[in-house]
Amino acid sequence: MSDYSLLFAPLTLNHTTLPNRVVVTAMVTRLSGEDGFVNQAILDRYARFARGEAGLIVVEATAVHRARSGPLLRLCDDGFIPGHRDLVERVHAAGPSKVALQIIHFLKIARSGWRQTVDMLSEDELGEVVRGYAQAAARARAAGYDAVELHMAHAYTLSSFLSARNRRRDRSGGRSLEARLRLPSEVLARVRESVGADFTVGVRFDGEECIKGGYGLGDARQIALRFAQLGADYISLSAGGKFEDAIHKEGVPLYPYTGYSGDRAMPPDSYQDGANVYLAEGIRAYLRAQGYATPVVATGKIATPAQADAILRAGQADLVGLARAALADPDWPKKARRGQPERIVRCIYGNICKNLDENFQKVRCGSLWPRGTLNAPELTDDDTPPAWPAAGALLAARLNENGQVRLTWSPALDGQGVYGYEIFRAINNGPSVHLTSSLTPTHVDEYALAGNRYRYRVRAYDFAGNRSPESNAAEITVTPGFALPPGRSLALDGAAAASAQPGERPNP
Amino acid sequence: MSDYSLLFAPLTLNHTTLPNRVVVTAMVTRLSGEDGFVNQAILDRYARFARGEAGLIVVEATAVHRARSGPLLRLCDDGFIPGHRDLVERVHAAGPSKVALQIIHFLKIARSGWRQTVDMLSEDELGEVVRGYAQAAARARAAGYDAVELHMAHAYTLSSFLSARNRRRDRSGGRSLEARLRLPSEVLARVRESVGADFTVGVRFDGEECIKGGYGLGDARQIALRFAQLGADYISLSAGGKFEDAIHKEGVPLYPYTGYSGDRAMPPDSYQDGANVYLAEGIRAYLRAQGYATPVVATGKIATPAQADAILRAGQADLVGLARAALADPDWPKKARRGQPERIVRCIYGNICKNLDENFQKVRCGSLWPRGTLNAPELTDDDTPPAWPAAGALLAARLNENGQVRLTWSPALDGQGVYGYEIFRAINNGPSVHLTSSLTPTHVDEYALAGNRYRYRVRAYDFAGNRSPESNAAEITVTPGFALPPGRSLALDGAAAASAQPGERPNP
Repeated sequence: MSDYSLLFAPLTLNHTTLPNRVVVTAMVTRLSGEDGFVNQAILDRYARFARGEAGLIVVEATAVHRARSGPLLRLCDDGFIPGHRDLVERVHAAGPSKVALQIIHFLKIARSGWRQTVDMLSEDELGEVVRGYAQAAARARAAGYDAVELHMAHAYTLSSFLSARNRRRDRSGGRSLEARLRLPSEVLARVRESVGADFTVGVRFDGEECIKGGYGLGDARQIALRFAQLGADYISLSAGGKFEDAIHKEGVPLYPYTGYSGDRAMPPDSYQDGANVYLAEGIRAYLRAQGYATPVVATGKIATPAQADAILRAGQADLVGLARAALADPDWPKKARRGQPERIVRCIYGNICKNLDENFQKVRCGSLWPRGTLNAPELTDDDTPPAWPAAGALLAARLNENGQVRLTWSPALDGQGVYGYEIFRAINNGPSVHLTSSLTPTHVDEYALAGNRYRYRVRAYDFAGNRSPESNAAEITVTPGFALPPGRSLALDGAAAASAQPGERPNP
Repeated sequence: MSDYSLLFAPLTLNHTTLPNRVVVTAMVTRLSGEDGFVNQAILDRYARFARGEAGLIVVEATAVHRARSGPLLRLCDDGFIPGHRDLVERVHAAGPSKVALQIIHFLKIARSGWRQTVDMLSEDELGEVVRGYAQAAARARAAGYDAVELHMAHAYTLSSFLSARNRRRDRSGGRSLEARLRLPSEVLARVRESVGADFTVGVRFDGEECIKGGYGLGDARQIALRFAQLGADYISLSAGGKFEDAIHKEGVPLYPYTGYSGDRAMPPDSYQDGANVYLAEGIRAYLRAQGYATPVVATGKIATPAQADAILRAGQADLVGLARAALADPDWPKKARRGQPERIVRCIYGNICKNLDENFQKVRCGSLWPRGTLNAPELTDDDTPPAWPAAGALLAARLNENGQVRLTWSPALDGQGVYGYEIFRAINNGPSVHLTSSLTPTHVDEYALAGNRYRYRVRAYDFAGNRSPESNAAEITVTPGFALPPGRSLALDGAAAASAQPGERPNP
């Protein structure tokens, strides 16, 4: 039923066939206990993704070692295998998705701001990192996972070896790319021996570090080539997420997503859609030129099935990764498959989820999920749409002196409950375009430009995806705060209308 | 004589026709006195660029106001016009180049680390900024410049209004894009009135701020559209260069290129060539989709005429900007026109020039120019190539435990003087590729990868561009520091040979 034929073309990684090209990439949840065992909240979260029909679900970073941390899944001894076996069974039972486990090693951090860096590790400790990965990968296979993903991105141990800021001065050190590659290469080689030739092993790493003195796409191409040469079954790209530019808060452990590199790891609404796709594109093209067919996963603010399909069609990637978009609506793949992309509850990239993680709280979609819930609501069979109150939606738009348009309207009514509101905007005589969504009957538009007339409408939606009638239209004309030169106009045409708001921007 | 037909196609901006598509973008020189007047060193620097035949030379940022600073050109009253008139005459007399003046307003900074921000400015002060630009632009026209360029990039006043981190809360404030655009729009409108419809006015701004909470390409598209709507004759794109992530050194005024955003403004050798071209490409495509033909200048580690021509052919930009590459060799355009791109002394992107600026010293190419000189050497008519001593070049390669290859060789001999050395590298049976250049007989290669045989040769060149015979070959085979899985190879093929070093990477 879907037009997204490439998005729904199966893909085989080693001996695992994914039903489609959508990957739910690993996300911190803070849902496990400090004991590191799989619990009910974890089972529920991943089963929910599976009901949404993603091709591959990558379970959150799971520690290969015993080091202290907050709530974090572990697989550092065989006692953790049964919990993971349950998790895999729950996911497989809930839908067609394959499921991978991301495994991680990290170094020590302290509330003082001190952190252990890779140059402090002894050769013995390097050996423990390698053994940790190799053993955890074997346990992941024993637990029934379809794949294991080696976390070599962001602020953690293996990423810090790959980093151009690796300060070691030995064969695992920072003065040459080969030395930076040594330990990650050894980890991948030993994991492969540990899990066997026929098990799917992926690697996730940064296509760009996004820190001063960090590596860029140039080095990332060589790093990807190394992983392809060593037989990685897929390469998944992130960006940034480093400690080096993290902002230290007194008495709180350093959190690696608080600086610019954290913005790049999870591009906020002010970034263009697909902001990091160029990394996947550059790396995939380089691998292909070298004769390697290793599939590449693009991530970073990929919002809609149309964008995802376009990325695949343009040959920028083989798989598209969703994190926040899948959190906002786990049914994104299912709705796309059904040809109902307009029913997707679109992530607004407000990064409330990121803030929850940053503040050591359980991660949920704080923008769009009903208050207090720990998972996205289930699709229901209800076919009664929400309605406006008798007096109507009473949508009103007010322009303030800062140039913001403040929208307010009356709450809608629904038998089962209103889930949220879609906000549409038309510029001048252009088409009405979905601008954003909101849980509450209010929105502030910071992207209304002078010389143009903006016409807004809203629509309520319920848990089944039923839509209310459109509200009344509210109009605003923004006058320039300066005198135009003669003969000049600030009027936007229809194409601009569809792209004058970050959420509506096409890919670069 | 050149194959770069697009690079050497003239382009008319308003009523000014550039002889080719090469723009020498504005660079800090620290060559003027503290008095702000044009002096002999300034005249010599820009005449040198003109002898190199760039299409447009943009003279360094020149203050529209009197605020204290280090050595900096000024045009804040009519008394500065005669010096600029001399400069324009010297440039026009020296070659075919057109010449623009970049004009700047900046805020106060203190050695304590304190800096004035845009939210501290009164409405009267905003009016002074507008008048400063409008009057300085008129003086630039009076001085005979072919164009004026409004500096709205990096850490300075107008860029800080455009910034997503503009903290004002009024009509020139940070809560909407329109408010952020207001003052820059007014400046452009009043400059146009001041210089008249027939004078070329360009705008340079950041395609991406590259700081936490900064704007990305999404906002940049809208900003570019506004300048196009207001009649800018060209748009030149930079990236980063902000105060927000600058590293404060005790007792030294904050320097806005010391953080990650400074790396992005001047991408170092670890970045791929053309690292920021995607910004020009994204903005140009957006302007064209909106019906605006405004020419766009791409900048950021564009190293060779072949790359520059490819950028134009791919429609990523209309003009290519060189800064460090033009400093390293002002004759870059002339050598390209003559079909001698191999004679270009290629920038190695070591950023010694950036470090000189950062340390308040006169800016020169500290990597490739003869020691002690304040300008690149002139091309001479000498046709005797350098020679190796009787014992030969004695090139030797040594691999250390960090994975670095250290090359040393004997100094060459030349009647007029050896200018430098070109270093070539072949991987396995691949072609010998120019890796980098060096003023001294030594180089360290940090990009030799395990499983491969590297063969190096060097060649000396003199001021006329004559080359010595090739040296002996020195070989190194790099063995992996880990055990490979069965059946896997780390061998690179010829294509990798040409791209396994940052300086040799193709555009993304």
